[in-house]
Amino acid sequence: MKTQVVIIGAGPAGLLLGQLLHLAGIETVIIERQSQEYVLSRIRAGVLEQGTVNLLHEAGLGARLAKEGLVHHGFDLAFGTQILNINLHQLLGKEVTVYGQTEVTKDLANARSAAHLTTIYSAENVSITGFDSNHPKVQYQLAGKTHEIDCDFIAGCDGYHGVCRASIPQNAIKEYERVYPFGWLGILADTKPVQEELIYGNHPDGFYLCSMRSPTRSRYYLQCTLDDHVNHWSDERFWQTLQSRLPENLQAALETGPSIEKSIAPLRSFVAEPLRFGRLFLAGDAGHIVPPTGAKGLNLAVSDVRYLSWALMEYYQEKNESGIQHYSQRALARIWKAERFSWSLTNLMHQFPDMSGFEKKMQIAEFDFLMSSESAQRAIAENYVGLAY
Amino acid sequence: MKTQVVIIGAGPAGLLLGQLLHLAGIETVIIERQSQEYVLSRIRAGVLEQGTVNLLHEAGLGARLAKEGLVHHGFDLAFGTQILNINLHQLLGKEVTVYGQTEVTKDLANARSAAHLTTIYSAENVSITGFDSNHPKVQYQLAGKTHEIDCDFIAGCDGYHGVCRASIPQNAIKEYERVYPFGWLGILADTKPVQEELIYGNHPDGFYLCSMRSPTRSRYYLQCTLDDHVNHWSDERFWQTLQSRLPENLQAALETGPSIEKSIAPLRSFVAEPLRFGRLFLAGDAGHIVPPTGAKGLNLAVSDVRYLSWALMEYYQEKNESGIQHYSQRALARIWKAERFSWSLTNLMHQFPDMSGFEKKMQIAEFDFLMSSESAQRAIAENYVGLAY
Repeated sequence: MKTQVVIIGAGPAGLLLGQLLHLAGIETVIIERQSQEYVLSRIRAGVLEQGTVNLLHEAGLGARLAKEGLVHHGFDLAFGTQILNINLHQLLGKEVTVYGQTEVTKDLANARSAAHLTTIYSAENVSITGFDSNHPKVQYQLAGKTHEIDCDFIAGCDGYHGVCRASIPQNAIKEYERVYPFGWLGILADTKPVQEELIYGNHPDGFYLCSMRSPTRSRYYLQCTLDDHVNHWSDERFWQTLQSRLPENLQAALETGPSIEKSIAPLRSFVAEPLRFGRLFLAGDAGHIVPPTGAKGLNLAVSDVRYLSWALMEYYQEKNESGIQHYSQRALARIWKAERFSWSLTNLMHQFPDMSGFEKKMQIAEFDFLMSSESAQRAIAENYVGLAY
Repeated sequence: MKTQVVIIGAGPAGLLLGQLLHLAGIETVIIERQSQEYVLSRIRAGVLEQGTVNLLHEAGLGARLAKEGLVHHGFDLAFGTQILNINLHQLLGKEVTVYGQTEVTKDLANARSAAHLTTIYSAENVSITGFDSNHPKVQYQLAGKTHEIDCDFIAGCDGYHGVCRASIPQNAIKEYERVYPFGWLGILADTKPVQEELIYGNHPDGFYLCSMRSPTRSRYYLQCTLDDHVNHWSDERFWQTLQSRLPENLQAALETGPSIEKSIAPLRSFVAEPLRFGRLFLAGDAGHIVPPTGAKGLNLAVSDVRYLSWALMEYYQEKNESGIQHYSQRALARIWKAERFSWSLTNLMHQFPDMSGFEKKMQIAEFDFLMSSESAQRAIAENYVGLAY
């Protein structure tokens, strides 16, 4: 088989890249290790920057998003008993949209199959070679049979544990990492969200996040230890603990119900540099991870894909390699700023078991300054709605 | 002897408190361990917030300050080869004034002796007692003879190593501290400052600060290790090292000359809580230390003294103890914010020997975000010109 661009990974990054390249007349094949059912059942982020929403509209994927997405004009930061509303609309005239990553992925997958584009799910033993030459190749097995695709470029959209980053020679890539000393225990439940806007909270017992997927589906998180296990968390214990961390005026309003999903995720900051090696590009989680505080993960994957689609369009339509040459640098400039924001909001909003007394006081002072300074609030808002491309 | 308020320490905090209380008709005696010559020869900070300047004017000490102080509309932050001017005037319509702490102390000491108020220099074995009752006492020796003063209140303005904080029972006070893994090597020289405004710089070899006391007197600093010694630093080595850290366009402009003073200071963040114990108050360095990055030390001492003078005036003029009851809380609210600012600017502008690769990248991203966001610049400017009282 032969194509122009092989995309490894059928998550939102890979599918969106496929859609943008398809609209530009560039041929792609997507190879995915998991089944389609598995990919579509993954629960992930849910807050889209305006730039992400705009791109989805440009890509012809805006219909359901426009109908079902919840436009949010702000969010709350709660710290102890203090509550600060970051009013994105008032501060910047901007907004974000709550629309689950699962829904984005579904819309993208539907568009791809409607256009009869090739996506190979459940591909085993995927390997990539030749990307340091002009003749990259992708091999995989399907039902025991080996297949090979010749292509011009490989886009590694296969996540943190994927084969693409791992295939780059170790001396050609530098990795930066911070692992946080806690995790997020999350549940999904068909209950009315405790309030319309999100609440990120720092309670003496730990972080909590009140989020949602729709007016009838809530997504809540609690900070937990790294050695904790979902088996320790009955629904009852989860709701009781969440209620005890909520601002007092909301405790009675918390609607509880059976969880649809319950899982623990570790928190990590990670960046690989560079994001291009010859004719292989890394995009999304394959190249970088942010802790979920601030909801940058999906949005960063989308901005990578935007830069990468521009670069490939320049290459095919204008015979210009400049976008390809600069992809890594352009994407990383935005990535590092989002990494900084996610890291600093994580630092502000969590209880760190190893914090000194002075560091705890600095966390409190940071919040107090934020309460008192519209400039500091605006700096947070700028990051939350998404920095410029 | 008997007086209303005994002030321990004749540095700027103690002398200013004496002056403000004198203007309010409250009697003070100041006790100082060092000689007047020693106190007046100490080289310290040099950047005054507008609130500090205003208070000095209100206290009748503005004449020489108005004539000799240098009004600065901004300062530079240099990071690698990037330079960011924080234009206080443009961002906030505010400014700061460069006027040495030594000069402030001289003006205050002159005003005090012109008013024939009692300051006892070179007092030995100073001790304070009874401040948990209504009858505090201060004892000291002068030329071998023991003296005792009965008073209503004791103001501890005797610095980090003073007797006042040390006299509070350990279980009644909590201390928060961060010691930084480097020091500042500073010199004073009668040379023309390399530029009109200050430069705080983060160079791969370490922090540097270009400051000044007048249009013909420069004050420069270099980050050094904690085990370094001034003996290792000839003037020539200092100037060469400073020149190598300066932004390229300023290197040729650096005017060198013999140093008048050369010293190494460690960097420390420190806060004691509370700042009142019975009838003893702590103000300035006796209660808290900031690293000098951002020039908050003297300004914080002045805001403590402002709160404390208000509290004592309320007590004597209105028989109202509310200011006294709330002194610690009011002063600390402002102190913690200034501690946060000094800590975060120190973190941004120094090379930390123990930083991970990820933390170094966060420092770079912090500066890049600052370069790109006027809101973030304004948040820094608000702190630099001084937060509200």
